[in-house]
Amino acid sequence: MEFRLKILGANSATPAYGRHQTSQLLNLENSYFLIDCGEGTQMQLIKYRAKVSRIQHIFISHLHGDHFFGLIGLINTLNLNGRTDDLHIYGPQNLPDIITVMLRHSNTHLNFRIHFTAVDSERSYLLYQNNRLKVFTIPLDHGIACSGFLFVEKEKERRINKETLPDNLSVEEILDLKSGKDIYYADGSQRYANADLTLPPRKSRSYAYCSDTRYSEKTMEIVEGVDLLYHEATFMQDQAEKAWQRYHSTTVEAASLAQKAGVGGLIIGHYSSRYRELQPLLHEAQTIFPNTQLAEEGKDYHIAES
Amino acid sequence: MEFRLKILGANSATPAYGRHQTSQLLNLENSYFLIDCGEGTQMQLIKYRAKVSRIQHIFISHLHGDHFFGLIGLINTLNLNGRTDDLHIYGPQNLPDIITVMLRHSNTHLNFRIHFTAVDSERSYLLYQNNRLKVFTIPLDHGIACSGFLFVEKEKERRINKETLPDNLSVEEILDLKSGKDIYYADGSQRYANADLTLPPRKSRSYAYCSDTRYSEKTMEIVEGVDLLYHEATFMQDQAEKAWQRYHSTTVEAASLAQKAGVGGLIIGHYSSRYRELQPLLHEAQTIFPNTQLAEEGKDYHIAES
Repeated sequence: MEFRLKILGANSATPAYGRHQTSQLLNLENSYFLIDCGEGTQMQLIKYRAKVSRIQHIFISHLHGDHFFGLIGLINTLNLNGRTDDLHIYGPQNLPDIITVMLRHSNTHLNFRIHFTAVDSERSYLLYQNNRLKVFTIPLDHGIACSGFLFVEKEKERRINKETLPDNLSVEEILDLKSGKDIYYADGSQRYANADLTLPPRKSRSYAYCSDTRYSEKTMEIVEGVDLLYHEATFMQDQAEKAWQRYHSTTVEAASLAQKAGVGGLIIGHYSSRYRELQPLLHEAQTIFPNTQLAEEGKDYHIAES
Repeated sequence: MEFRLKILGANSATPAYGRHQTSQLLNLENSYFLIDCGEGTQMQLIKYRAKVSRIQHIFISHLHGDHFFGLIGLINTLNLNGRTDDLHIYGPQNLPDIITVMLRHSNTHLNFRIHFTAVDSERSYLLYQNNRLKVFTIPLDHGIACSGFLFVEKEKERRINKETLPDNLSVEEILDLKSGKDIYYADGSQRYANADLTLPPRKSRSYAYCSDTRYSEKTMEIVEGVDLLYHEATFMQDQAEKAWQRYHSTTVEAASLAQKAGVGGLIIGHYSSRYRELQPLLHEAQTIFPNTQLAEEGKDYHIAES
């Protein structure tokens, strides 16, 4: 099953060097989750041939413009495209105020419903779940209400062991095996032990999005052991003081957090416009955490099943 | 002196085929006037190497999203770039409400002042002038408060006729000649007649922006004889009924207006996303008004001095 992240925008604050403001698209088996929505996100979605109609859930980390100025345009375009499906938006409590003012003054009547859920950025909790996925919040330290998001697959079914499976089981019994049950005779005595006919479930994969934020040990606890971590690295380490003042992180801080949290892989992004070349940022992070990648717009980052 | 229009966005409603939403940059001798500001305008300005810091005046025609969703992002970027110069914005009366809500919720404090002037879209009047230019409003028929803008150079100085100019005149006397005055002796008797030493001033050039709007004879009167007219042509003529219902114009309507108003040249734009290929729109307009051009993003349209 596909668990794939596409970077739509990787720059901070302002667009520069062809890089756009923050947005990411998480694709879990053709269910699209949009994370942040900087200006021009809808153009990036078109450019990378993502079907915008598939977006059901949008998560906004905070109300700095480079993370949400593209949201109203995307909503407007969904409406003009004839959308009727509900849209779910999660973000800071003042976001509906902004959307409402713009829709009212532009005399726009939506043909679909928006369900808004305000995010409490002071604590980590389960924000959303469906039959495959749970999304938790990650409180971030950015000087303004700001929350990251942790996407975790739910526990999966046990896998049938084709080598030991007898051929006389009913569909219901197969489903019982997948859910971990043993198989019984009508008189209640055990016919097969589950462990003899099944293999352990595949690992539940996870992705954590942490932007924008200072380095924080609290974050580390929440993202511990995730398969893939996106952590902002606005600056290189020689700008550590500036990073702290502006509530941002450095390459070294992002990589240290990844290393201490024992994550599978790290993507750094949200680059300051002072950096045209990004290889120095990558190399600096890799000195701490070798399995670091740069966020590159248009690139897919797959989390494989294991 | 340069009088140059650059198209930044030429599509209607939603972005499509690499075309952006409406925005134009009028450059009068390095004074920049931005007309409308669809999403992504700041990226287009970067792409076409226009110095955003030179923008002093922004004119917004109406509050449909494809004409103003890029404004807040541009303001934000100007601020992050360290702007301190005042910025003048002209547009519908509710525009400050939108800007204010977004600045407040994103905790943004501008380092420059915005002077906002509400446009009365019910009448044509002088909206702004400096020492070289006057800007008049053009009421448009779009089912929502909507105004076009007419940019007219002020009357220019008479030109010195180098072939007849004597070499014994002072700087003050040369300036008098340029402003149309005769030259006198100290006793008050005429020394030179202005007409003998000067040539008529160069023609004052003009550009009219009309988008979005139905075809309107009232518009025609206001733009009569302009050097260059931009008139929306969202649809081809076979969609005339749809154009009318949606308060838009067709190619034939735009060209007819240009022809009846006796303008020098016509640019059509604000193309519906139903049109991937634009040559049919151009050809249809040219059957009525041959000197029609397509609005092409990144292209400069010069109005030469004569």
